[in-house]
Amino acid sequence: MSNPILVEVTRGGVVESRHRGAVAVVDADGRTLLSLGDVDLPVFPRSAVKAFQALPLFESGAAARFGLTDAQIALACSSHNGEQRHVETARAMLAAAGRDEGCLACGPQPPEREADKARLARMQARPGRIHNNCSGKHAGFVCAAVAMGADPAGYNERGHPLMEAVIDAVATMTGAPLAEDLCGTDGCSIPTFAVPLTHLAHGFARFATGTGLAPERAKAAARIRAAVAAEPFMVAGTGRFCTRSMELLGTRAFVKTGAEGVFTAALPERGLGIAVKIDDGAARASEVVTADLLAALLGLGDELAALQRPAIVSRNKEHVGDLRAASALTAAIAGLPTS
Amino acid sequence: MSNPILVEVTRGGVVESRHRGAVAVVDADGRTLLSLGDVDLPVFPRSAVKAFQALPLFESGAAARFGLTDAQIALACSSHNGEQRHVETARAMLAAAGRDEGCLACGPQPPEREADKARLARMQARPGRIHNNCSGKHAGFVCAAVAMGADPAGYNERGHPLMEAVIDAVATMTGAPLAEDLCGTDGCSIPTFAVPLTHLAHGFARFATGTGLAPERAKAAARIRAAVAAEPFMVAGTGRFCTRSMELLGTRAFVKTGAEGVFTAALPERGLGIAVKIDDGAARASEVVTADLLAALLGLGDELAALQRPAIVSRNKEHVGDLRAASALTAAIAGLPTS
Repeated sequence: MSNPILVEVTRGGVVESRHRGAVAVVDADGRTLLSLGDVDLPVFPRSAVKAFQALPLFESGAAARFGLTDAQIALACSSHNGEQRHVETARAMLAAAGRDEGCLACGPQPPEREADKARLARMQARPGRIHNNCSGKHAGFVCAAVAMGADPAGYNERGHPLMEAVIDAVATMTGAPLAEDLCGTDGCSIPTFAVPLTHLAHGFARFATGTGLAPERAKAAARIRAAVAAEPFMVAGTGRFCTRSMELLGTRAFVKTGAEGVFTAALPERGLGIAVKIDDGAARASEVVTADLLAALLGLGDELAALQRPAIVSRNKEHVGDLRAASALTAAIAGLPTS
Repeated sequence: MSNPILVEVTRGGVVESRHRGAVAVVDADGRTLLSLGDVDLPVFPRSAVKAFQALPLFESGAAARFGLTDAQIALACSSHNGEQRHVETARAMLAAAGRDEGCLACGPQPPEREADKARLARMQARPGRIHNNCSGKHAGFVCAAVAMGADPAGYNERGHPLMEAVIDAVATMTGAPLAEDLCGTDGCSIPTFAVPLTHLAHGFARFATGTGLAPERAKAAARIRAAVAAEPFMVAGTGRFCTRSMELLGTRAFVKTGAEGVFTAALPERGLGIAVKIDDGAARASEVVTADLLAALLGLGDELAALQRPAIVSRNKEHVGDLRAASALTAAIAGLPTS
């Protein structure tokens, strides 16, 4: 059976493209409020679980020992644009742990935005590992490894105490068994395990509420949520969905994108977690689904309108089409309890 | 009913993402050899019909009058990377018609490749209309307008004699009625009409063979195919599917990508046209489908293997997954007649 069409892409009066996918909205006790499509199929969460992967930063004592700021904590959970502030903040995290970007195991990646690419080129500099969208997460890994008393070398590999702690954090937050046959390698060269959307959403409901978490972990989750709400630029960057939505919503929502069409969110006031996977891997569709869910579950007006229905524009900036929720998504959202 | 899954994206041993779509392979008499999914649904062909849109360049007399070279004709059919040779060639076409890039109606766009972006930045230059991936097509439009004796101003709009000739060329090649409610605006600010895949494939079968075309048009089609086969770099650029496949196949195949997951091909020796649309708009999937069809229909060995099964790599260039044909596509291709 195929997943429903969740998002349509229009041009003129015609639907040009269609995105199918699955959505789970789950509370902290594991009850499913909304389920669309196959929510039991294991999917790679990719960068959508960076907040879980940042928990060892607290549980190792690194955050306290190195006096990490809100901006640095937010960057540890980020998929950032490689803008100047992101890069400087990642460097400062490494310096706090007495290390530098030579320690990073993620590969080099150009900054996301044209302006930042051009700035590097004008400086005769090349994009490096520090510009990788995951460099903040990796800088956090290095900090945590050092705080654990481990040599950071090989921190991205199975068997290294840091990576085992990271894998354990994701496993215990989602409650999903991390089977070897569901393991792949992420774009930044760390292991990633496929987990069902229901488990992913349940993990974010617990991240939102602290329900069922050890007190120290619940405190770490709250600290991460507060840090990202205070520094939403650091978790993504200029123009990005995560940054724009959290600039508008503050502590009301923690949201995070993952590669290949994954999105997650934690809504403390509703005690809910959200997990979205677009079948074909399209970020543009996962964003529309997430914006519509946030608007409905938080009882918003048109605050997120630009994210719920992004315009397709020509290179001359003419408005030529739209992304919009398809009927299956609209109907499912209309059936949600309002509070 | 949903279109079949045509392409899978793997990571480790897991299928991470899935692309659905439709495929039509049609001969010059309009007989369908292969049909997968809904091939009657009108889809925007986008840049996949640039070769049809280049026909007025010949029918206006512009190609002869301005002595257009193979490289210039190939660029007129291109979605190029904005590399230095592409930009210089577009400028030369405009100069041949006594115009310059100020005439171009397409919007500015950065070059595709990091190296070309960096080169511009080091020159303190900004990306312009000439770097737009459609600038060769637009330069061809300007040449044709001038040859028609029309003021090029507004050449991208309905009602301008050049654009009416372009629209008529697409309509007569595909044989599809171009209804007003199926009209949208392309990314480069020209009208685009949605047409069924069967019509699109039939148009490329006629483009491959000349069947049913006026002698002058059949000659123009042959000239375009020869020009692109001689200058495959000009139709796309470094590393691109269209360029790589035609570098390998020469005159045996004319292939062309279009935005939102469209691909077309013309196979003269088989007398066939191919049209592909991926539901979700993903180019990566349309390329795999096209490579598999080319390999089967031309009886190739492993010449296109790297395009049929592209590797997914981490930022450290580790091989972490693959794109591959899904079972519905493999089965349909296995059922094709071999010659």
